[in-house]
Amino acid sequence: MDHSLDPETWLPYCPYYAVASDILSRRWAPMVLRALVTGPKRFGAIAAAIPDITDKLLSQRLKDLEDEGLVERFLGEGRPARVEYRLTEKGTELGQVLLDINRWALKWVDPQDRGPAPKTPATTRR
Amino acid sequence: MDHSLDPETWLPYCPYYAVASDILSRRWAPMVLRALVTGPKRFGAIAAAIPDITDKLLSQRLKDLEDEGLVERFLGEGRPARVEYRLTEKGTELGQVLLDINRWALKWVDPQDRGPAPKTPATTRR
Repeated sequence: MDHSLDPETWLPYCPYYAVASDILSRRWAPMVLRALVTGPKRFGAIAAAIPDITDKLLSQRLKDLEDEGLVERFLGEGRPARVEYRLTEKGTELGQVLLDINRWALKWVDPQDRGPAPKTPATTRR
Repeated sequence: MDHSLDPETWLPYCPYYAVASDILSRRWAPMVLRALVTGPKRFGAIAAAIPDITDKLLSQRLKDLEDEGLVERFLGEGRPARVEYRLTEKGTELGQVLLDINRWALKWVDPQDRGPAPKTPATTRR
């Protein structure tokens, strides 16, 4: 492929981007990645950060993201050691772009315009 | 909301980001926006830039994106004048971030790892 990194020369379709689009189009995937941008987490902490996601769906999505090389499991420092999830280098670099999407959203989105609000205020979710 | 713009202080959940995630999670939405980043286009040109999308789905997605204030229709310069689609300011700013996702994809994605290739080489799609 001869896609230049100069946006002016880009074509309207890029097969690499299509794969990224496919990853982000999976329900909850952008939310799971965003939750992990703020640091490694146990399963329950990720679930708590995503309103309405079921354990089954979160489990499936984490497995997908592991298969994509974006997320990895590891044993946390606590005793007893428990499984945690963190972004890989590939996932971390995507996560930085997702924070830019968050910055865009903070500027442009009015959450009142859309569906139900989260059940608890975001500021209580740690 | 008291979300700082310093990522270090961000929480794992942001309701503004959740709306953005919802927009991007709609099938084909990231592809439609990406096609329009390269400039205003007629319906047929957008369809040609997205392998496998149906006219019905593209029509629905364009309507959604118009409702979100990301895309707008206008009468092109040609004669006879024909309807074209372009990004709004809100859409253009999101589009710039999508180009960063494209840059990420060019660095990290191997399209051979995933589903069927586009039917024609990307470089022929104008």
